[in-house]
Amino acid sequence: MTEQLNDVAHIAHAELYTPKPDESLRFFVDVLGMEEEARDGQSVFLRGWGDYLRYSLELTEAPHAGLGHVALRTWSHDALERRVAAVEATGRGAGWIDGDVGHGPAYRFTDPDGHVFELFYEAERYEAPPHLAPSWRNQPQRYVGRGAAVKRLDHVNLLAADVRPTREFCQDVLGYRLYERIELDDGTETGAWMSLTIAAHELIYVADAYGARGRLHHLAFWVDTREECLRAADLFVDADVPIEAAPSKHGVAQGFFLYGIEPGGNRVEVTTGGYFVYDPDREPVTWSAAERARGQFWGVKTVDSFHTYGTPDVANEKEAITT
Amino acid sequence: MTEQLNDVAHIAHAELYTPKPDESLRFFVDVLGMEEEARDGQSVFLRGWGDYLRYSLELTEAPHAGLGHVALRTWSHDALERRVAAVEATGRGAGWIDGDVGHGPAYRFTDPDGHVFELFYEAERYEAPPHLAPSWRNQPQRYVGRGAAVKRLDHVNLLAADVRPTREFCQDVLGYRLYERIELDDGTETGAWMSLTIAAHELIYVADAYGARGRLHHLAFWVDTREECLRAADLFVDADVPIEAAPSKHGVAQGFFLYGIEPGGNRVEVTTGGYFVYDPDREPVTWSAAERARGQFWGVKTVDSFHTYGTPDVANEKEAITT
Amino acid sequence: MTEQLNDVAHIAHAELYTPKPDESLRFFVDVLGMEEEARDGQSVFLRGWGDYLRYSLELTEAPHAGLGHVALRTWSHDALERRVAAVEATGRGAGWIDGDVGHGPAYRFTDPDGHVFELFYEAERYEAPPHLAPSWRNQPQRYVGRGAAVKRLDHVNLLAADVRPTREFCQDVLGYRLYERIELDDGTETGAWMSLTIAAHELIYVADAYGARGRLHHLAFWVDTREECLRAADLFVDADVPIEAAPSKHGVAQGFFLYGIEPGGNRVEVTTGGYFVYDPDREPVTWSAAERARGQFWGVKTVDSFHTYGTPDVANEKEAITT
Amino acid sequence: MTEQLNDVAHIAHAELYTPKPDESLRFFVDVLGMEEEARDGQSVFLRGWGDYLRYSLELTEAPHAGLGHVALRTWSHDALERRVAAVEATGRGAGWIDGDVGHGPAYRFTDPDGHVFELFYEAERYEAPPHLAPSWRNQPQRYVGRGAAVKRLDHVNLLAADVRPTREFCQDVLGYRLYERIELDDGTETGAWMSLTIAAHELIYVADAYGARGRLHHLAFWVDTREECLRAADLFVDADVPIEAAPSKHGVAQGFFLYGIEPGGNRVEVTTGGYFVYDPDREPVTWSAAERARGQFWGVKTVDSFHTYGTPDVANEKEAITT
Repeated sequence: MTEQLNDVAHIAHAELYTPKPDESLRFFVDVLGMEEEARDGQSVFLRGWGDYLRYSLELTEAPHAGLGHVALRTWSHDALERRVAAVEATGRGAGWIDGDVGHGPAYRFTDPDGHVFELFYEAERYEAPPHLAPSWRNQPQRYVGRGAAVKRLDHVNLLAADVRPTREFCQDVLGYRLYERIELDDGTETGAWMSLTIAAHELIYVADAYGARGRLHHLAFWVDTREECLRAADLFVDADVPIEAAPSKHGVAQGFFLYGIEPGGNRVEVTTGGYFVYDPDREPVTWSAAERARGQFWGVKTVDSFHTYGTPDVANEKEAITT
Repeated sequence: MTEQLNDVAHIAHAELYTPKPDESLRFFVDVLGMEEEARDGQSVFLRGWGDYLRYSLELTEAPHAGLGHVALRTWSHDALERRVAAVEATGRGAGWIDGDVGHGPAYRFTDPDGHVFELFYEAERYEAPPHLAPSWRNQPQRYVGRGAAVKRLDHVNLLAADVRPTREFCQDVLGYRLYERIELDDGTETGAWMSLTIAAHELIYVADAYGARGRLHHLAFWVDTREECLRAADLFVDADVPIEAAPSKHGVAQGFFLYGIEPGGNRVEVTTGGYFVYDPDREPVTWSAAERARGQFWGVKTVDSFHTYGTPDVANEKEAITT
Repeated sequence: MTEQLNDVAHIAHAELYTPKPDESLRFFVDVLGMEEEARDGQSVFLRGWGDYLRYSLELTEAPHAGLGHVALRTWSHDALERRVAAVEATGRGAGWIDGDVGHGPAYRFTDPDGHVFELFYEAERYEAPPHLAPSWRNQPQRYVGRGAAVKRLDHVNLLAADVRPTREFCQDVLGYRLYERIELDDGTETGAWMSLTIAAHELIYVADAYGARGRLHHLAFWVDTREECLRAADLFVDADVPIEAAPSKHGVAQGFFLYGIEPGGNRVEVTTGGYFVYDPDREPVTWSAAERARGQFWGVKTVDSFHTYGTPDVANEKEAITT
Repeated sequence: MTEQLNDVAHIAHAELYTPKPDESLRFFVDVLGMEEEARDGQSVFLRGWGDYLRYSLELTEAPHAGLGHVALRTWSHDALERRVAAVEATGRGAGWIDGDVGHGPAYRFTDPDGHVFELFYEAERYEAPPHLAPSWRNQPQRYVGRGAAVKRLDHVNLLAADVRPTREFCQDVLGYRLYERIELDDGTETGAWMSLTIAAHELIYVADAYGARGRLHHLAFWVDTREECLRAADLFVDADVPIEAAPSKHGVAQGFFLYGIEPGGNRVEVTTGGYFVYDPDREPVTWSAAERARGQFWGVKTVDSFHTYGTPDVANEKEAITT
C-alpha cells in the first residue's frame, strides 16, 4: 500500500452563514452553550468548552444560510507547504490570505464541488480568561454546562453534485482516509465518510438531491455522552428549535445523533459515539441502496427532508421543516 | 397486619437556613439550576423544573446553617385533621399557623429529636409564566437545563440523637413506612430509611455523632439520570463547590449520589436511582455495623466527615471539609 | 374530594400467551435476561432480577398470542375482601380460584372490555438459590446482566373497544388514579394512563383500532436507565428481534421506550423514565387529537402498526411488522 | 518542530500471565464478556466485540501474574522495517519471531524497564463465524452483551523503575506522543501518558513503588459509555470480583474508570471517556506532586494499593486487596 499521508491534522473551524445573525447567535450561545470568543466585521467567533484553539465556529451574517468555509490545520509548516503544493497542482488553489482571527496565513482553495476550504498551520491556542479558567489544567476551559454544552465542532457534512471526485480529491490531495461509503447499483457514489484520525468521520460528502453545488448538509458538534444528546433534545423542545431527527443511532458510522435547524436555516447536529478505526489497512465499508433502505441502526427512517434539504435552501424546503 | 396509614402524601418543601444568603442563593440558582419563585422577608422560595407546587425549597437567612422546617402535604382536608389529631395526642404539637407563601393553614410540631415539621393540605399549584411555560403540558415548567437542573427536592436526611423513637414517631403518627435500617450489635438503631411511597426513601434519620438534636444531615435534590449526577460533579468542580463525596452508589437504598457543601455550610445531595418498593409486606432490611463497614455499594468508603458533619456545625468541622 | 382508595398495591404479574413457547422463552431468557423460576403445565414463570415476588411474567403456550390475565396484589386480606366485594357488585366477578404457582387464593373477574384479571393477597416472597444470591441483601436477586437484564414487569397496556367505561371501572372498583388521557374532539376517549402509585403509569388502556375486545397492546419491562434501553436496542438488532419503535421518549407520560415483537407475536417494551406524581389532587392531563398529531416527545412519529396492531392479531398485521 | 513519526498504528494485543488460567478465563469470558477466538499451547486468545483483528488479549498460564508482552502493529511493511531499525540502533532488540496466532513475523525487544514488546505488520482480520456475525457490516462482530461486554483492549499501563528513559524510548523510537506527565518537585518523572492517536492515552508508565522492573499496573478494556462502567461495577459486585477503585473520573487524562483484580491477580480496568487531542503542537500537561494530592477529578482518593500494587506481586499485596 501507499504510505499514509499525514499532513493535515484536523478541521480547525467552519464558517457558517446566517441571514438571522442575532437569532443564530442566541441559538449557538444559549441552546448549544458555546462561548463568544471574538467578533470581527460581520462575524462572531464561537468556541466549545473543549476547543484547544480559540474557536471552532465562525458565524457570519450573509444574505442566505450555508457554509462560508472549512479551515484545516496542518501538522507543521512543512506539511502546510506540501499540501498547498498539492492543491496548486490540481488547479483548485485560490491563493493565500493573511490570516484571520486566531490564525496565521491561510491558503484558500475549493473542493471539486465548489466548497471553500482553507489550510493553515499557525494558530493561537486558547487562553481562558479568569471567569472561564478550568479547575483542571488538562481542559482548556471551565465547564459551565449552559444549554447542550457542546464540547467542540466534530465534523462537517457537505452536499456534492458529484460525490466521487470530491471524495477522491480529499483523499489524494488532503490525505483523508475513507471509512464508509454508499454506492448505488448503477455505480453512482452517493456518500463518503472520511477522517484524518481514528474518529469514524470528520468530513462527509453526500449527494445533493438537487444537483446543486457547494451546499452544506450540516455541522456536527460533539458531546461526550448519549445522555447529553437526549438532554439536548429536551432543550430543543423547550427552546422551540425544530427537531428534524430525534436522537437515535446512525447505521453508517454508528454515530449517535440529534438534528435540528438553527434559526438561520442551517441544519445542526449534536453528536457522540461512533467507533474508532485503528486498522491501518481499513477497507471502506460500502453500502448498497438496498441496505440503506433499512434505515438507521435501530430501523428509524429519517424524514425526506433529511435527504434533500441543505443550505442554501435551493428549493424553499425550510418552511416545511421548521413549522 | 395493621392497615397502612395513607394520610400524608409527600414532603412539600424544606426550609434551609443559611448565614450566607446571597452565596447560597447563587448556588441553588446557578449551580443546582433552580428557579426563584417568590421572596418573603428573609426567605427566597425556589423550585425545580418538575415541582408541581410552587416551590420545594425555602432558603432563609439565619445566623447559622441548618434546617428550618420540613413541610408535609396531606392527601386531603380530612387526612390533615386526622394527622393533626394524632400529633396532638403525642404532645408534640405546637399549633396552627396561617400558612405561608404558596400554601394554606399549617400545623407545626416537632419530631422527638426536635426538628420542626409542618402539616398542610391547601396548596397552590404552580402556574408557569410565559418564559417558563413548557412545551408539553404534562410537565409543570420548561426545562431550561441551567446548571445541574435538579427536578425537585427528593428527600430529607436528618440527624437524631436517638434514632429509634424518632423513627417510630414518623411511622406511627405520620404513616411512614420503614424500608431499611441500621442496628448496631448492642441494639442501638443508627439509621432509618423511610418513605410514604414506592420510592426507596423520602425521610431518613441517622445517628448524630455528637448527640446533638435537631440537626440536618442533608437535603437531596432529584435528577432523572446517573449521567446528570456525573455532570453535576463536573459543574461542582468548576464552580468551586466542595465535593464531600464524589458520585457513586449507596449500599443502603442503592441511591446514586453526589454530595457537596453549599456556601452556607449545608450538605446537599444530587441524587437519582434507588429502587421501588411495591411489596405491601415489606420487612425492613436491617444492616449490622459489620455490614456497613463494607462501605458503599461498590466499596467506596465515605470520608469521616460524612458520618459526623451536620448543620448547625456543632464541632466547627466545616472548614476542614470545604477547604 | 373523595378519599383515595388504597386497597390494590400493584400488578403482581401478567400472563402472556404464545403460540411459539420455545422461541418466546428464549427471547425472555436470553434477550430480555429474565430467569426461569418455575414451570407448571403449559406455563413457564419468569422473573426480573428486581422482582420481590417469585415472578412477574407467566408465559403460557396457547393457540394464539395475547394476554392470559393480569394479577393484582392487594395491601392486605381485608383490602382483598373489600375489592372482591366491589367487583362482585359490578357483576363482573367470575369467582375464586385456589391459587397458582407462588400465590394464594385469587378472585377472577373481567374488566368491561373482557380482559381477565385476578386479585390476590397471599404470595410467596422470592428466595434466591445460592447461584442467584445477591451480594447486597436489599436486592432480591443477583444481577447477572444477561441480555437486556430487565428488572421487573413495569406496566401493562391493553386495547379496549371502549376505553372510557373500562377506565372508570379501574378507577372506581380497583382504585386506580388517572394521570393522563386522550379525548378526541367528538368526546371519544381513546387512551387512559393509570397508576396505583407515584409511577406515571402502571395500567394503560388505548382504543382498539379494530373495535376488538380483550386484546393486548404490550407488556413493558423496566430497566433503571435510558442507556439500558439503548443497549437493549443493540441487542435486539443483533438477536434479530424486530424493532417496531426505536428508543425514544413518549409525549404522554414521558416514558423512555423501545418496542419489539417477541417471537410469539406479542409487542414488548423495554422502558424507563417517566415522572413521579406526588400531587394528591392531580387533575388528569387530557390530550386532543391535534396535540397527539405532534408525535412523541421529540417529534418521532410512531409507525402505523403501533396504533393498530395488538394480540391476538385480528388483522394478520404481524407479518408486515416482523419482516 | 520535528515532523511527527507515524509508523506504529496501535497496540494490537497484550499478553497477560495468570497462575489461575481457568478462573482468569472465566473472568474474561463471563464477567468482561470477551469471546474465545483461539487456543495455542498454554494460551487462550480473547477478543472484544469491536476488535477488527482476531483478538486483543492473549491469556497465558504462567507461574505468576504479570505482563507477557505488548504487541504493536505498524502502518505498513516499510514502517515496520523503519521501526525495527530504530529499535536495533538502541541495542534493545531481541530479534524476529515467526509470528503467532493471527499475525505474521514479529520483532521482539524490551523497553528500558524490561517489558517485552513486539512489532509486526501482517495480521489476520477477524471473520465472524455465523453465530457471531453482526447485523451491521461496519461492526466486526455481533454484540451479544454478555457481562461487561468490553469492546476491545484500550490501553496498557506499565510500572517502571525509572519512568523518564522508558517514556523517551517510546517517543523517540516508537513515535508515541506525550500528552500528560507527573514530575515531582525534585525532578523525578513518576508518570507519563502517551498515545499514537487522538485518544488521550494508549500507553502509560507510572513509577514502580518498589523499584522493580517489568511489572504491569493494569490492562484497560474499553466500553462506549460511562453507564457501562457503572453496570460493570454492579456485575463485579455480584460476581465477587474485588473492586479496587469504584467508578469515577481520573484527573489525569480524564478517563472514566473501574478497577478490579482478576482471579490471576492482575489489575484490570473497564474504561471509557477521556478527551481527544487534535492539537499537533500539544505541550504535555505536567502535574506536580501537590496537584496530584488533590486526588482524582472529583476528589476521590484512590486506595494505597492503587499506587503500589502491580504484577508480579513483589510484596504480597494481593491478599490485602482481594479479601
